[in-house]
Amino acid sequence: MSLGYFFNPKSVAIIGASHTPEKIGYCILDNFVNGGYKGKVYPVNPNIDKIFNLPTYASVKNISDPIELAIIAVKAEIVPKILKDCVNKKVKSIVIISSGFSEIGEAGKKLEEKMKKIIKNKKIRVIGPNVVGIYDSSTKVDTLFLSRERLKRPKEGGIAFISQSGAVGSTILDIFAEENIGISKFVSYGNAMDVNEVDLIDYFTKDEKTKVIAVYLEGIKSDGKRFMESVKKASKSKPIIFLKTGKTKKGIEAALSHTGSLAGSSKIFSAALKQSKALEVENWNEFFDACKVLALQPIPKGKNVLIVTNGGGFGVLATDEAEGLGLTLKEPSEKLRKIFKKMFPTYVSFNNPLDLTGDSTAERYKIAIENSLKEFDGVIVITLFQVPTLEENVVDFILDMQRFKKPIVCCAAGGKYTKKMAEKLENGGVPVYPSPDRAVKSYNLLVKRSEQVKR
Amino acid sequence: MSLGYFFNPKSVAIIGASHTPEKIGYCILDNFVNGGYKGKVYPVNPNIDKIFNLPTYASVKNISDPIELAIIAVKAEIVPKILKDCVNKKVKSIVIISSGFSEIGEAGKKLEEKMKKIIKNKKIRVIGPNVVGIYDSSTKVDTLFLSRERLKRPKEGGIAFISQSGAVGSTILDIFAEENIGISKFVSYGNAMDVNEVDLIDYFTKDEKTKVIAVYLEGIKSDGKRFMESVKKASKSKPIIFLKTGKTKKGIEAALSHTGSLAGSSKIFSAALKQSKALEVENWNEFFDACKVLALQPIPKGKNVLIVTNGGGFGVLATDEAEGLGLTLKEPSEKLRKIFKKMFPTYVSFNNPLDLTGDSTAERYKIAIENSLKEFDGVIVITLFQVPTLEENVVDFILDMQRFKKPIVCCAAGGKYTKKMAEKLENGGVPVYPSPDRAVKSYNLLVKRSEQVKR
Repeated sequence: MSLGYFFNPKSVAIIGASHTPEKIGYCILDNFVNGGYKGKVYPVNPNIDKIFNLPTYASVKNISDPIELAIIAVKAEIVPKILKDCVNKKVKSIVIISSGFSEIGEAGKKLEEKMKKIIKNKKIRVIGPNVVGIYDSSTKVDTLFLSRERLKRPKEGGIAFISQSGAVGSTILDIFAEENIGISKFVSYGNAMDVNEVDLIDYFTKDEKTKVIAVYLEGIKSDGKRFMESVKKASKSKPIIFLKTGKTKKGIEAALSHTGSLAGSSKIFSAALKQSKALEVENWNEFFDACKVLALQPIPKGKNVLIVTNGGGFGVLATDEAEGLGLTLKEPSEKLRKIFKKMFPTYVSFNNPLDLTGDSTAERYKIAIENSLKEFDGVIVITLFQVPTLEENVVDFILDMQRFKKPIVCCAAGGKYTKKMAEKLENGGVPVYPSPDRAVKSYNLLVKRSEQVKR
Repeated sequence: MSLGYFFNPKSVAIIGASHTPEKIGYCILDNFVNGGYKGKVYPVNPNIDKIFNLPTYASVKNISDPIELAIIAVKAEIVPKILKDCVNKKVKSIVIISSGFSEIGEAGKKLEEKMKKIIKNKKIRVIGPNVVGIYDSSTKVDTLFLSRERLKRPKEGGIAFISQSGAVGSTILDIFAEENIGISKFVSYGNAMDVNEVDLIDYFTKDEKTKVIAVYLEGIKSDGKRFMESVKKASKSKPIIFLKTGKTKKGIEAALSHTGSLAGSSKIFSAALKQSKALEVENWNEFFDACKVLALQPIPKGKNVLIVTNGGGFGVLATDEAEGLGLTLKEPSEKLRKIFKKMFPTYVSFNNPLDLTGDSTAERYKIAIENSLKEFDGVIVITLFQVPTLEENVVDFILDMQRFKKPIVCCAAGGKYTKKMAEKLENGGVPVYPSPDRAVKSYNLLVKRSEQVKR
């Protein structure tokens, strides 16, 4: 059965709804009632009559209307009983938030096995248990039991984000929101008693709102061959990025006690990902940086990139990184040099990196980028916004260059003022990184993706 | 002659002072007049009578009082003449901001050679040319020609920061200010016609306000042997951190055209640094992270560290990084387990990483850290501030644990609310990093430093 009901249900039952603000069931109910969800909401709690002015049901069985999504947030022991009720009620989809199952050892494992039996051959799909669940930026399905004050939700956008870990997943959402990056859908799938990473990857491959699939994984819950096929299929239509953890002996142990995943050999896994044309990143920053660049920028035709800077030292840092990654920093052509010679002061040296020097104006950036995008596959633009001669309209000039349909990635390092300028760039669709190496590494992911598409 | 006059001059002449806000000479004068500097200020400009209500002199020769620091911000061609005036006036120290010397090629090189002759055997020290110069957080000597609106100045603190590149240096200052990290002194020394990295390292080694020396380098300007001796001496009394750029062929070319530095083989350089017991970092983030941790936290006695978290996935990420770096994640002792068993819910697993789970309270962190610091050399504390059960006073509990005089490094990833909490921790002296790998890498630098001190 399709996963569609999870993201766009007409009716939602929240089992374990509570009027105590510290409780998970309060936060989730609050999300649906006050977070913009447009469907019907049914709180379920046998001890209460009304929550948030909504009539409250003793059991899902007592609701007369059909339920397309049930969210279960009660203690582990009574989950099997509630699951049975949901099956009998013919609920279409269920998110089990509760923890205390296979991740805690034998007793929990037994409970989880019992639950698997309950849903076997039934027309029902289950996400969880041991999850924060789902956030859909468009329909506002939001099972995250983290208050919207402490954890912001991102705006609508092109990234579908799948996370085995609820904490990692929700934290990334918070940062996406902070950095103004949009997502289509988010799912934390935890112990994966039914829906696993393969189901989700397949679904997001077809999902029109999703332009990039991003996955945080401790160990696969699906069959290895099916997993690779699924990734391969996904990468044919959109970039798919992995952050895989549980790489060292201790890390594997930690993963096992966290989501009950067997992390397996990370080398074999990396090789499989490469073969399936997925993009694997090494760490937290890279994961985040990769999502941003692949969601916002087009892929280049080739490896040729020009680095433009108004800070010599930053040019050197970026060059080192670019060379190390195998990007091609070809020198500007004679034709281009002639243009620069005519337009720029004598002390600008027309190399790659192109150092417009510390007294560069916005106009100098405009001339540099506009002309070089005619012969380079893309540009990495370093702007030290702190210098007095650089007018704020450099932001508009850079954003306007997107008309060339070639990738533009920016680096702007600094404090408050710089961050304000960077935000303007990102609102216009150009990703900005706080260090030269991160900007270059991100640009390089576009090149990697372009090579995948070609092959 | 000592470099003391650069940082604590009783009188300053600003040659090239201007009343045009876009000019370098305006910004520098503004810094001295309105930035908190307590000494006497003498603007020098032959075309103006008064600037900022200060009488303005046609030449430094016309000032009757002694001048301890002269700042030269005029075009390159007239710098030699002004330098002569300064020598005749018996100025003690000079910062030459102007560019257009050895970094631009032959003509500039000649000019610089001429200047070297002028100061030869004179009782005068020169920083520059081609620099942003000096910032002293205590005396407010501030030759940075970047407005205090666009580029914030950091507070007083223990880091002395030496940068060959003015742009890189001043940007790091901006970020230090943004992150509330204090510095003692900053110097960008550019072409180093007189004062070079060795002079500065020697000076900061003796400087009592400096607890950590941080250096951004493209290539050394001093004799290699002298350089190594100087670094070795420094590292005996305080940590010295290097970010070296110009590592690849293209990067070396870029460095040459930037500050006229021959970057040399990066492998040889790295080996020399290691032998001299300096800490070398790989990239921008690491440099910054290293400064923070070494300035704020004590070094551990050994490699044993406990990772404490309320997010399982973050525990796995941190564990992978720690294992990869060779930190020892020994399991809690039986004694410690007994305490945890008594105090924590059954679903907390007493391993390393210690996962206090998603419903952890502040109290649980207090118990975990307080008891484990009795047997571990230090802790890495991951706090997902977004979860509803974690009270804000966890910050006070963590800060209080500094009484053990063992290193504490935090990771807090997230948006606005998380950043607010992280700021409170850092104000109290505990460094916070936005990802597990950066927190662990930073902690590992404390271990590295502790090994250097032991040997």
